[in-house]
Amino acid sequence: MSLLVTGSIGLDTVETPHGSGQDILGGSSIYFSLAASLFCDVRLVGVVGDDFDLELLDPLHKKGIDTSGVEVRKGSKTFRWKARYDGAMNDAETLGVELNVLGERAAEIPESFRDSAFVFLANSHPALQLGFAEQMRDARLLVADTMNLWIENERDQLEQTLRAVHGLLLNEAEARQLTNQANLVSAGRKILELGPRFVIIKKGEHGSLLVSHDDLFVMPAFPTENTIDPTGCGDTFAGAMMGYLAGKDAIDTAALRSAMARGSVVASFVIESLSIDALAAAGESDVAARLDALKKMARFD
Amino acid sequence: MSLLVTGSIGLDTVETPHGSGQDILGGSSIYFSLAASLFCDVRLVGVVGDDFDLELLDPLHKKGIDTSGVEVRKGSKTFRWKARYDGAMNDAETLGVELNVLGERAAEIPESFRDSAFVFLANSHPALQLGFAEQMRDARLLVADTMNLWIENERDQLEQTLRAVHGLLLNEAEARQLTNQANLVSAGRKILELGPRFVIIKKGEHGSLLVSHDDLFVMPAFPTENTIDPTGCGDTFAGAMMGYLAGKDAIDTAALRSAMARGSVVASFVIESLSIDALAAAGESDVAARLDALKKMARFD
Repeated sequence: MSLLVTGSIGLDTVETPHGSGQDILGGSSIYFSLAASLFCDVRLVGVVGDDFDLELLDPLHKKGIDTSGVEVRKGSKTFRWKARYDGAMNDAETLGVELNVLGERAAEIPESFRDSAFVFLANSHPALQLGFAEQMRDARLLVADTMNLWIENERDQLEQTLRAVHGLLLNEAEARQLTNQANLVSAGRKILELGPRFVIIKKGEHGSLLVSHDDLFVMPAFPTENTIDPTGCGDTFAGAMMGYLAGKDAIDTAALRSAMARGSVVASFVIESLSIDALAAAGESDVAARLDALKKMARFD
Repeated sequence: MSLLVTGSIGLDTVETPHGSGQDILGGSSIYFSLAASLFCDVRLVGVVGDDFDLELLDPLHKKGIDTSGVEVRKGSKTFRWKARYDGAMNDAETLGVELNVLGERAAEIPESFRDSAFVFLANSHPALQLGFAEQMRDARLLVADTMNLWIENERDQLEQTLRAVHGLLLNEAEARQLTNQANLVSAGRKILELGPRFVIIKKGEHGSLLVSHDDLFVMPAFPTENTIDPTGCGDTFAGAMMGYLAGKDAIDTAALRSAMARGSVVASFVIESLSIDALAAAGESDVAARLDALKKMARFD
């Protein structure tokens, strides 16, 4: 089945202890799309300014990602993000954000994309997410991501969005902030009361946690020693997870668990380079090999 | 096989958002012994002052723990620790420590305990640990715990101790501090260069990581919503882990993984009350039920 993603496309300037890049391709929907394309057909909806070099999307076209939903808006400028990672490489320190075109009206979902059965609303203003969700109301699976900014400043709007989606992805600090619960299982259960049928709490190097009405699942991260740049890790996890579900056309509990395992594995590639390079280079056999390794690393009696 | 543990016996004063206790039984070897006693015969070596009410050890005697290695030292005072946990319940803020008898000469290992095949040296000054390790040189498995204080102030001594043991347990902050590596897998590998055949890095609510020359294993924590008091969690994990190995008389990779699973499960009980109450109340069938649940919660294809 086809998977539709809406989210940011940006130019990132990133400093890490292992290297840095200026105006490199970034944005949630970019990482998401590349990861998802390992498993299914991907349709990308987003908006850039007329300063955006469309050749940057070539790696997406090589993976068969349909970018006909990317609008190049005349007179607008592309979203830019500047950040630095310290030695522990877990949290980015944001040095600057230029919303630019992301602060204007939303991208349009092309008519040809409206039959997408699987939809992911990457992090953006919850009012925009709700607009997309309402347009894609017949989707089999609608999942959203969010962030601390909206939890703090747009809670009512966010709660409306949560009632319109089937699943929510967020990180552990966000889950605690949204629910005022320190315990992540309790936080997950509180989020279920807000509407979603399942919530996946991302814990970075510590893996992820699935809480749903009929399941509780703990997924380790793929342990890796080669962290160059963690940017896009969560979006890559989401892309592989949603891509797996769309590829299998499945939304049951066992499929969700398998999907999170693919998320862990594919996210382990993206951190091994700046920008999308290592992610774009990972093929199906690389993913299969690390999945096999992860299964062995997590087995116990 | 018999398991010998040396470590602290103390009187704790603990404040948590869910309750508090004054001069309640605590100390690493207490939690360790009770957890280990679920799986094997336990021999406890430690020292208290003459202010210690020996009836506090009754719960240990009920579990068949041999406390004949507990010395009551005349004219000395028992170790005391005062701490507070905030809402997140992960890190204790130490409000006061009275080393008292722990700052004097070490406890003696009774002659009748010298044939113990499994030995755990709970956190104490590395010179004391080394002294015990040298007395128990013929043990089949010698494992030590340590802490930030010794890593910072007694590194040479600690490195000597690490060359005398087969395994090391420590938490993630300590592993990073000891090796100057942010990545925990890299930290684990560095620790192997210091001597131990394996290292287990405890990550609190995020589980634990085993690094050895022939294995890399990620173990989730048992997810629980009922955290009353995390004191003793790491020592309980260690006790169940070592107890399982001693009970099976096994030290291979598969046994280590199984042992860590028991550690995760038994640690999930201790946090459900102040002091040892919930741990002492947990029986074999309770442990078996949570182990079964944990296996189900961690399964994926």
